[in-house]
Amino acid sequence: MESAEQISEILKLANSKKIPVIPRGAGTGLSGMAVPAKGGIVLDLSHMNKILKISIEDRLAIVQPGVVYADLEKALAPHGFFFPPDPASGTVCTLGGNVATNAGGVKGAKYGTTRDYVLALQVVLPDGRIMRTGSKAIKSVSGYDLTRLFVGSEGTLGVVTEITLKINPRPPVTTTALATFDDLEDAGRAVSQIMHSGIIPSVLEILGRHTIVAINQNMDLNLPEVDAMLLVETDGYTREEAEYQMEKVIGVFNNNNPKEVKKARSLQDAEELWKARKSAYAVLARIKSHFVLEDVTVPMGKVADLLKGVEEISRKQGIQIATFGHAGDGNLHPQILYDGYDPDQVKRMEAASADLFKLAIDLGGTLTGEHGIGLSKAPYMGLEHDPVAMDVMRSIKKILDPNNILNPGKMALDG
Amino acid sequence: MESAEQISEILKLANSKKIPVIPRGAGTGLSGMAVPAKGGIVLDLSHMNKILKISIEDRLAIVQPGVVYADLEKALAPHGFFFPPDPASGTVCTLGGNVATNAGGVKGAKYGTTRDYVLALQVVLPDGRIMRTGSKAIKSVSGYDLTRLFVGSEGTLGVVTEITLKINPRPPVTTTALATFDDLEDAGRAVSQIMHSGIIPSVLEILGRHTIVAINQNMDLNLPEVDAMLLVETDGYTREEAEYQMEKVIGVFNNNNPKEVKKARSLQDAEELWKARKSAYAVLARIKSHFVLEDVTVPMGKVADLLKGVEEISRKQGIQIATFGHAGDGNLHPQILYDGYDPDQVKRMEAASADLFKLAIDLGGTLTGEHGIGLSKAPYMGLEHDPVAMDVMRSIKKILDPNNILNPGKMALDG
Repeated sequence: MESAEQISEILKLANSKKIPVIPRGAGTGLSGMAVPAKGGIVLDLSHMNKILKISIEDRLAIVQPGVVYADLEKALAPHGFFFPPDPASGTVCTLGGNVATNAGGVKGAKYGTTRDYVLALQVVLPDGRIMRTGSKAIKSVSGYDLTRLFVGSEGTLGVVTEITLKINPRPPVTTTALATFDDLEDAGRAVSQIMHSGIIPSVLEILGRHTIVAINQNMDLNLPEVDAMLLVETDGYTREEAEYQMEKVIGVFNNNNPKEVKKARSLQDAEELWKARKSAYAVLARIKSHFVLEDVTVPMGKVADLLKGVEEISRKQGIQIATFGHAGDGNLHPQILYDGYDPDQVKRMEAASADLFKLAIDLGGTLTGEHGIGLSKAPYMGLEHDPVAMDVMRSIKKILDPNNILNPGKMALDG
Repeated sequence: MESAEQISEILKLANSKKIPVIPRGAGTGLSGMAVPAKGGIVLDLSHMNKILKISIEDRLAIVQPGVVYADLEKALAPHGFFFPPDPASGTVCTLGGNVATNAGGVKGAKYGTTRDYVLALQVVLPDGRIMRTGSKAIKSVSGYDLTRLFVGSEGTLGVVTEITLKINPRPPVTTTALATFDDLEDAGRAVSQIMHSGIIPSVLEILGRHTIVAINQNMDLNLPEVDAMLLVETDGYTREEAEYQMEKVIGVFNNNNPKEVKKARSLQDAEELWKARKSAYAVLARIKSHFVLEDVTVPMGKVADLLKGVEEISRKQGIQIATFGHAGDGNLHPQILYDGYDPDQVKRMEAASADLFKLAIDLGGTLTGEHGIGLSKAPYMGLEHDPVAMDVMRSIKKILDPNNILNPGKMALDG
């Protein structure tokens, strides 16, 4: 695909013939959004990869949907600006996919997710009509917020063909520290107390015991095998600002029985502290033949309860689950490890997933913080959303896509 | 009203009899949103004024819609937290109204508007069904973003009965400065260069010549009668952070031929610098028997063009227009002053409004940055939104409110 007009023609045809159309960027989504569950046309948007405009004075970038996240970062860097959502797949994922899934990353607590940065869209509707939403002005309250209706709609309402993003200046100074806790309760209390201290760290990551053990077994990091490890970063324009916040955080760590607190003295130090966190996903992915990376989020005060609950599920279902994630916004990634060739293990994995979703909802949380619903979480939508909300979502889907051609089978919208 | 259940019963009755229902908080909206344009029931929500929960560790507050903005501020202050949108009517307006209009204020450039802080809602739909949207988790991408569909919908889609808001720690240090410019071009260039310098001031306000002259004629401030005055505030956890940003800003001022640059040395100094900006609206409101406070927004690089265009419109239509507003996010408030008892002046005011909307759209902007569409800007919706977007908005209105009972006549949704 190269233009909205081409896509419009394809959608008109598909709509008249009732052929499913599945928009696809880089296909890095973790919930099966780009899987053609009901067959049809996979609409490859990766060639629409032009950065159309960067305007620092207007604080925005206009891009096509196939632009890779990292390519926009590279283009913004010389200006001292960045697009903050920072998904883990940033080197390969596309901005169209970021919009479709409302992508987030390690900086969500302080900087929010994609939703907070999308100013305007060009969208091709299922019947081929081309529409503009939002405004290139930073601030607008003109009409319904159609822009955010499309952000996170996983390609079920329209095909995004142009994106206007608000961008931020990048704070030039960061400080990094790491604390380990023998007792999960202490780590959970530290997370809550950081919030009470009035600091929002730019990064506040957590690694659970099983993740730490797995890293030790597969890498040369010699981590202390504790209940929890917290990695924190603070930022600012000045060294004083970053240090002031870090002192507050370290004060909280020291009040909660840490086994150890390490503060980076240099950029190299900081990279060393990041190693465990950065390797978590890949190390865990290699342990068994298969894995599912979950993505539940709870209110921050419940992070320790969620971690404890995951351990119980792991024991109850007799399956390995290792957890890491973003404690600063309550978004954890329990990674369920299993042998996909063993039907019994597959059953246990599925039961553990179901338990996990129920646990997150019981703790006042949500099925997904950043990976989306897609195929894999569609059966659980009713756990989180009341029947009225489900009905409203389905009504919106129906008026925009009466023939259900766009990404059918996703988000439980067909029912 | 005291509960969602009561409101549900009223809406069921009104829906069956097709009686208009107009939700109303404090009625401070500036576009006529709470005016019962087609008669019917005015639903007074001001008694639903309980703060239900403040949870610092979960970084949220749960409130009823009738809570006054300032009352939430008072409740959050002891924790060192605040709800940043800060509308100018904060001492009287209600949070339900803030949600309905996506309210903003002087801190929009750095801290965003109401939309950026609403995590979850309870809403009564026109048919009486009660629905929950969003999640109390800070981060969620589960299903369509129904929450933001209701934010800014001006009471046309449902009645909001409970609001969950994300809250922020308040940066304890601020610095304030003021610069005057003989030439508007210089002021406009300064605004653009501040953005290029990588700083987002927490406040960046502008006052145009006619506003300055009017203040001088009505108050004892002895302002220099220049083309433009910029008022700037920077903030941080530390003095160094706020000062670092202010130095950058003052550097930009000094590079653009300022007549004068004043930096506050104390809190009292800062209050002195704020006096002109804070008095603008009230001073202008007293000059003629009537006024309209407009609210257009343009990309920041076009702020000077907008100000120049406003002067031209003022000359062309032979009517007084004085402008002030939020240069940091491009949202300006031209205040049109006229004698409402003189039919000729009313005609000139209307012509000037129409010219102003066209100018803002031509500059790539929007009809409204924070006051909403309501009644007064409804005729201009088609200037900004293409026919497809208008059709999608009307379809959404129709599925949720098929009898058009909720706040009919607003936002051009009836057509």
